[in-house]
Amino acid sequence: MRTRAAVALEAGKPLEIMDVNLEGPRTGEVLVEIKATGLCHTDEFTRSGDDPEGIFPAILGHEGAGVVIEVGEGVTSLEVGDHVIPLYTPECRECDYCLNPKTNLCQSIRSTQGQGLLPDGSTRFSMLDGTPIHHYMGCSTFANHTVVPEIALAKVRKDAPFDKICYIGCGVTTGIGAVINTAKVEIGSRAIVFGLGGIGLNVIQGLRLAGADQIVGVDLNDDKATMGKHFGMTDFVNPSKIQGDIVAHLVELTGGGADYTFDATGNVKVMRTALEAAHKGWGESVIIGVAPAGAEISTRPFQLVTGRVWRGTAFGGASGRTDVPKIVDWYMDGKIEIDPMITHKLSLEEINHGFDLMHEGKSIRAVVEF
Amino acid sequence: MRTRAAVALEAGKPLEIMDVNLEGPRTGEVLVEIKATGLCHTDEFTRSGDDPEGIFPAILGHEGAGVVIEVGEGVTSLEVGDHVIPLYTPECRECDYCLNPKTNLCQSIRSTQGQGLLPDGSTRFSMLDGTPIHHYMGCSTFANHTVVPEIALAKVRKDAPFDKICYIGCGVTTGIGAVINTAKVEIGSRAIVFGLGGIGLNVIQGLRLAGADQIVGVDLNDDKATMGKHFGMTDFVNPSKIQGDIVAHLVELTGGGADYTFDATGNVKVMRTALEAAHKGWGESVIIGVAPAGAEISTRPFQLVTGRVWRGTAFGGASGRTDVPKIVDWYMDGKIEIDPMITHKLSLEEINHGFDLMHEGKSIRAVVEF
Repeated sequence: MRTRAAVALEAGKPLEIMDVNLEGPRTGEVLVEIKATGLCHTDEFTRSGDDPEGIFPAILGHEGAGVVIEVGEGVTSLEVGDHVIPLYTPECRECDYCLNPKTNLCQSIRSTQGQGLLPDGSTRFSMLDGTPIHHYMGCSTFANHTVVPEIALAKVRKDAPFDKICYIGCGVTTGIGAVINTAKVEIGSRAIVFGLGGIGLNVIQGLRLAGADQIVGVDLNDDKATMGKHFGMTDFVNPSKIQGDIVAHLVELTGGGADYTFDATGNVKVMRTALEAAHKGWGESVIIGVAPAGAEISTRPFQLVTGRVWRGTAFGGASGRTDVPKIVDWYMDGKIEIDPMITHKLSLEEINHGFDLMHEGKSIRAVVEF
Repeated sequence: MRTRAAVALEAGKPLEIMDVNLEGPRTGEVLVEIKATGLCHTDEFTRSGDDPEGIFPAILGHEGAGVVIEVGEGVTSLEVGDHVIPLYTPECRECDYCLNPKTNLCQSIRSTQGQGLLPDGSTRFSMLDGTPIHHYMGCSTFANHTVVPEIALAKVRKDAPFDKICYIGCGVTTGIGAVINTAKVEIGSRAIVFGLGGIGLNVIQGLRLAGADQIVGVDLNDDKATMGKHFGMTDFVNPSKIQGDIVAHLVELTGGGADYTFDATGNVKVMRTALEAAHKGWGESVIIGVAPAGAEISTRPFQLVTGRVWRGTAFGGASGRTDVPKIVDWYMDGKIEIDPMITHKLSLEEINHGFDLMHEGKSIRAVVEF
């Protein structure tokens, strides 16, 4: 079949909107009609050429929602008409990682996914001239139709709006999951969130959901405070307006340091500040942001020996097929909010404008609707 | 009263054996006759002048065992004749830290202890000319008699030999506790221990006690392998004899990386290796060693984002008054061994020779008996 897609032909170039060929699903695969997709910084990281593992040409996008159109041989958990969210971290429920409750990093299709291929080592997308187009993070949601392995699809309720729940495919789950699955924040905790973008705001609402007493937001842009407060932030700190050491300021503000801190900036210096602003004895710092290639975090080991813990999270520690449908329920039940974070709606033709909005800091999430 | 002590008069000088004045215990304090004390690297770190927080003159030593000779006013949990182990990490059972099960870092007398003073801000030791001598880590076990706060004394059974259980005052508890309290190693785990000295060997026997399946010891000195095996090591690696990358070698040896790794070297490069040799998804690395002043650990944040956890431990995460008596029981019951690690016995007059043995790598633990 043919479908319409935004194709990344080369690193650093705008996406090109074009018709492409899409083969039907093979064994264990599912053809999905994408109804909506968010634009995430990770897509831009790859599009821009900053991602050393970027492969071109490719159809980017990993934050989508849609409907099952056709299932391949052997697919048992999904049928035509099911509503689904593609998962860049699949959940096979059979590998050593899926069977270990400490991790969500299913490895069953890791190597082919990293090469921009489906598990059988081939691609379903191609140019009209036959040139293969790579998949991206196993999802490729910047296409009106895509083929995804069954184990990389979360089945969700049919009454949830695609243009909102697509965001659960990455940002919402990453932020809320960092709080709930990775940090396991307890009621009454004090927390600090660095970076109040699309991930940071979801960390904040995750902290509110978890019953945190104090939620400090840190951002260089004062304009972020309003939205932060809307989602549950109790204190706002703009480091550029603090006299003296930011760590000392945050330790004072949180009565000795935070029980939990979260980096949602990707800046390795901020990651260090986040660790050191955690409470002596028990404070845990969680790295969410993706750092530039080659960047390193550092600190004095004394920070850890005196009880701080440094950890990271990917996809919010969520096992997607199990956890994503629950988060969709939370949204539909009003336990979490998504609507105010979807600041822009675009057509596929306008997708490059979405990246402009991201760079200008004007959008929290721009969503493309098909 | 007068007692005999090894006094650190100045940084970098040998200890001087001399008679000193010792005042009796004040409110909440206890006079202890030290029967035996181990020599730990931390004593040497301070004696040598490398410790930027070192204070002189001082009576060093923090790994002792002895008998209560006199109790000050208000002391309720100890009486004359009790056998005790001094605790450089006290346990007041009342501060925010003691009441938080995530930490053992009782802060109740932290500031005075750091200044070489007892909680009322004074010292009980002085030169015969009246010059005050500082306490050290709240213990000062390099004296035949010392005064220690009640909350910094673990009461232990009377049939346990002082010349062995003194080692529980630091090395044994630090190593075994890192496994049991900090890492919480599960039965069947795979682990790597870096540095097979007095701490590393105790990590190894802690791992054996916790039921680890694979216990890899790493040391640059092949001679350490024999003792490592005695305590439960299953594999020995000498990095100087490995072709290529040591991390890759260890990941291969442990079938994908260790569930738990422990640094007992104090070398920040080794700490990085330890983190990176931990298993993707769930491996935890625990820093035990004390690094040189100003040294920093570093790694790519990707190591944490893909599931590794970096933490540290002080005094093995043990709450001393509660946990130390249990470890003494484990020793007396044969669950753990100490005797083979006490490689040298010295008199107080020979104490400087003990530091020579340490530097020459000839001792695991040298113990001074009074």
